[in-house]
Amino acid sequence: MKIYNFCVIGGDFRTIACSNKLAGLGNNVKVFGFDDTSSFDEKITITSDIKESLNDAQYVLLPLPYSSSNGVISAPLFKKKIEIDELISHLDSRQTILAGKIDDSLSSVLDARKIKYFDYFNCEDFSVKNAVPTAEGAIEIAIRELPITLSGSNCLVTGFGRISKLLSSLLKSFGAHVTVSARRHSDIAWITAMGYEALYINELSDSIHKYNVIYNTVPHKIFHKELLKKINKDCLLIDLASKPGGVDFDAAQKLGLNIIWALSLPGKVAPLTAGEIITDTVLNIIKEQEVK
Amino acid sequence: MKIYNFCVIGGDFRTIACSNKLAGLGNNVKVFGFDDTSSFDEKITITSDIKESLNDAQYVLLPLPYSSSNGVISAPLFKKKIEIDELISHLDSRQTILAGKIDDSLSSVLDARKIKYFDYFNCEDFSVKNAVPTAEGAIEIAIRELPITLSGSNCLVTGFGRISKLLSSLLKSFGAHVTVSARRHSDIAWITAMGYEALYINELSDSIHKYNVIYNTVPHKIFHKELLKKINKDCLLIDLASKPGGVDFDAAQKLGLNIIWALSLPGKVAPLTAGEIITDTVLNIIKEQEVK
Amino acid sequence: MKIYNFCVIGGDFRTIACSNKLAGLGNNVKVFGFDDTSSFDEKITITSDIKESLNDAQYVLLPLPYSSSNGVISAPLFKKKIEIDELISHLDSRQTILAGKIDDSLSSVLDARKIKYFDYFNCEDFSVKNAVPTAEGAIEIAIRELPITLSGSNCLVTGFGRISKLLSSLLKSFGAHVTVSARRHSDIAWITAMGYEALYINELSDSIHKYNVIYNTVPHKIFHKELLKKINKDCLLIDLASKPGGVDFDAAQKLGLNIIWALSLPGKVAPLTAGEIITDTVLNIIKEQEVK
Amino acid sequence: MKIYNFCVIGGDFRTIACSNKLAGLGNNVKVFGFDDTSSFDEKITITSDIKESLNDAQYVLLPLPYSSSNGVISAPLFKKKIEIDELISHLDSRQTILAGKIDDSLSSVLDARKIKYFDYFNCEDFSVKNAVPTAEGAIEIAIRELPITLSGSNCLVTGFGRISKLLSSLLKSFGAHVTVSARRHSDIAWITAMGYEALYINELSDSIHKYNVIYNTVPHKIFHKELLKKINKDCLLIDLASKPGGVDFDAAQKLGLNIIWALSLPGKVAPLTAGEIITDTVLNIIKEQEVK
Repeated sequence: MKIYNFCVIGGDFRTIACSNKLAGLGNNVKVFGFDDTSSFDEKITITSDIKESLNDAQYVLLPLPYSSSNGVISAPLFKKKIEIDELISHLDSRQTILAGKIDDSLSSVLDARKIKYFDYFNCEDFSVKNAVPTAEGAIEIAIRELPITLSGSNCLVTGFGRISKLLSSLLKSFGAHVTVSARRHSDIAWITAMGYEALYINELSDSIHKYNVIYNTVPHKIFHKELLKKINKDCLLIDLASKPGGVDFDAAQKLGLNIIWALSLPGKVAPLTAGEIITDTVLNIIKEQEVK
Repeated sequence: MKIYNFCVIGGDFRTIACSNKLAGLGNNVKVFGFDDTSSFDEKITITSDIKESLNDAQYVLLPLPYSSSNGVISAPLFKKKIEIDELISHLDSRQTILAGKIDDSLSSVLDARKIKYFDYFNCEDFSVKNAVPTAEGAIEIAIRELPITLSGSNCLVTGFGRISKLLSSLLKSFGAHVTVSARRHSDIAWITAMGYEALYINELSDSIHKYNVIYNTVPHKIFHKELLKKINKDCLLIDLASKPGGVDFDAAQKLGLNIIWALSLPGKVAPLTAGEIITDTVLNIIKEQEVK
Repeated sequence: MKIYNFCVIGGDFRTIACSNKLAGLGNNVKVFGFDDTSSFDEKITITSDIKESLNDAQYVLLPLPYSSSNGVISAPLFKKKIEIDELISHLDSRQTILAGKIDDSLSSVLDARKIKYFDYFNCEDFSVKNAVPTAEGAIEIAIRELPITLSGSNCLVTGFGRISKLLSSLLKSFGAHVTVSARRHSDIAWITAMGYEALYINELSDSIHKYNVIYNTVPHKIFHKELLKKINKDCLLIDLASKPGGVDFDAAQKLGLNIIWALSLPGKVAPLTAGEIITDTVLNIIKEQEVK
Repeated sequence: MKIYNFCVIGGDFRTIACSNKLAGLGNNVKVFGFDDTSSFDEKITITSDIKESLNDAQYVLLPLPYSSSNGVISAPLFKKKIEIDELISHLDSRQTILAGKIDDSLSSVLDARKIKYFDYFNCEDFSVKNAVPTAEGAIEIAIRELPITLSGSNCLVTGFGRISKLLSSLLKSFGAHVTVSARRHSDIAWITAMGYEALYINELSDSIHKYNVIYNTVPHKIFHKELLKKINKDCLLIDLASKPGGVDFDAAQKLGLNIIWALSLPGKVAPLTAGEIITDTVLNIIKEQEVK
């Protein structure tokens, strides 16, 4: 396995796990953007100067998402602000940025500066791997919040993508009665073949009252006001879809529904695993680059 | 289904669920021992006088455990104290007490007064049914506490009773590598047949270091100091065995191990289900009595 | 549900099941091409004249595959030959043919005659539903042929399409050690997430010797001579891929390998279910046509 | 691991597998009672003289069952007869017999001659391990015989012992609707906890008509004439209970029911595994003897 110089800037516990794994594999890792550095592996170089930290890096690893407010790198474990402009000013075209959720404002600057960049959040294997902690977190929420057991409960999962497939399988293992809702004939056939009740999404309203827990994974507003009205007051509604989510929240709140918007579960539920998933994805990106 | 007069004294959320289910089935239910009675079904008679509450009851339902301090009924949702002696003074031999964890001090008084009593905690179907919320709660703890996913983790479950059987099956569904430890040849054969790694309990020390999470279900001190020393510092140790548990806690604390003594999970994880399990068990007891 | 006039020509036990289900749903069904008609529902009209059988049909249902030798409808339960040319000569443009595996020779004639046709074999929900009996049949073969239990055995499944997904899941339920082999990163990630061992197809040769049973679902010759040489002599190799299959059969035979080419399992393993799948698919086709 | 001198007399393919495994573990193995000896490991000594074969044996391994007709060792792969009396005449009190289904006629002779003996068929771990091939064989029969898929079928399993537990779990994995029938409250609770429909055995007659396949594991005649009359003609009834079985066969035949008496499945379905189970059990017996 080839060895690289990484510079890790900002991030949260996932970043610490990621850095430690990179170092554990023999890479040279410098880190900038953490007040408490006690969790980092001792092989890692902690720097207090961003320029020094970047100078010999081949790969600069930024968090997921790389920024959560304008112009600043996401660094929740660091008191100071890390300006994106300053960061970029220290880079040159021999260096490659690996970041999560790269937007136009970042990509246009990097393009102009001829700095290469990859968004690991867009890799399909990254999404697949993160479906696991997401599904586990979704199960945890239901066990914690529901006053009944999953065993014997009526569960609905809307959508039949990665998270839904793993989650439905887990729910069935718990002895829940699992219904999965989708739009396409072939998905409905597949849902039936997997042993779940299948329900076309446009037929949700007939049976929506009977569920103890509903998981939404569809990133469109399918839970509109009229549908929400038919949901049982004791039902727990867990929205796993990324923003804007699949639920009309204003309507849900007015109806007093028990609703949880469960975002970014991997980093919360299993930060160590989530960090290792970033590492794996980033190393796959690098390997594929070298092949080209 | 026959209808009875129940008097419910003290208890927690499980008691509320139990009372509501009894009333829902058509029984006459009086309740004493709750400050906030808003969660009770409207068919239930709330009383503020214990004597009145008891006078026409055929069955008096006490909590699980019926008492948690000397001479007083367990009533965590009630500010006042309910003296056991007073309660008994209002009963006569035509009435039957249904209580959890009846001890000698209660049974001797009831025997002397010729009042019939049954301990629903001792019924085998009660234990079987409660293994479900216990196993779900045990899963919830691991997902919540571990920084890694259950998927791909190394899990050890000691003992092969009801909770262990359900828990191991769930862990395997999550994609964990599951090892189950037992003492008897036939249990080891069965563990293997179920697709888990089997380990004799006396051989624990050789591989104990490799687990990410260890669940103990054996109610003997099998996790003594020497064994605890070999456990990985990152491991989560969850003791599900009833008191005195299976772990030398003093030693575990000195070693800085990450340990959770998870007791009475059904009432915490799924109070509604736990209340319904009490109802079912109590009605089975009554039915079997009538047959005799 | 709307009612139609169906004419069913030729076919096997699946066709009988399909006809019975169509009739059971209230449709008018005429049948031609069976010597022994005792298994048909009494509501079905058995005809001995193909012209009469076709005259008022809205939908003409042909077998899967519609023909297995030149110019003749597949009719294994009928002594006489049903000429395709004669069949078509009785049709006009108000009638629709529903057939399996329609080829250019048929479609060109039908196009010329302006007769509508649909190939139900090409529908995605048809493939999904048939993956179930295929996977069950694949399990049956291994239990029947192997001198060992699936429990504890080492199983390899190549490819990660529909059949592979269902089959791998079943194998794991039996307690087999399941390895799934695929080409794409995201499939490998998904295989791992499902709890199987993942193996890139180009790395097969390193571990191919260790399997007790190998299922191929890849319709390309991935099991070439050099790979076959490394397979254990006791291994059972089951090729589930449609023609030309994934195995160099000449090489396999010379090596004395234990190999089974398992084609068309649904009709053999579960003809009743397979017939109902044809019915469902055909009715879906008709429904979607009407919407247009 | 200690090494022993074994003499293996008679038996079937399981015996060959057992002998090969014993030899593979380093034991000295002599074999008598096979015409075709080509499947035996080359380390094994094939003898044509029973006396010579027995003379230095510490353990004499007999088949399961040791005899299927009066006075003769079961040896289906041997043309000649092996008289039990002659066999015993060559033994002395330093030798130990390991046999399956030892009856009074054998034990009384051995007791009189002070020859030690153990019945490996009676060991609990033997029964547990054999439940695996039995359950697999039971699945194989249903897939082979039923014209429908297990997926979506209605399956009933009577009894809730070892075989039932494994079989029910497998059926559920196939997507069958599984009902398990038992007598005891605690079994019913456990059946429910495992996610199956539970049915008291005395309530069988109400719903018996709805099943596509019924497995009996109860070794009492619970399927009497009146119950059999209510079973659907298309239902497949598989009796897994040892003799006398749980079905009134005369009545079942008169009713024309589709019934299979599936006995001794391990040796038929997985002779190699069944032979290894005998080996394991026998070695456990020897080990436990030495400890004493």
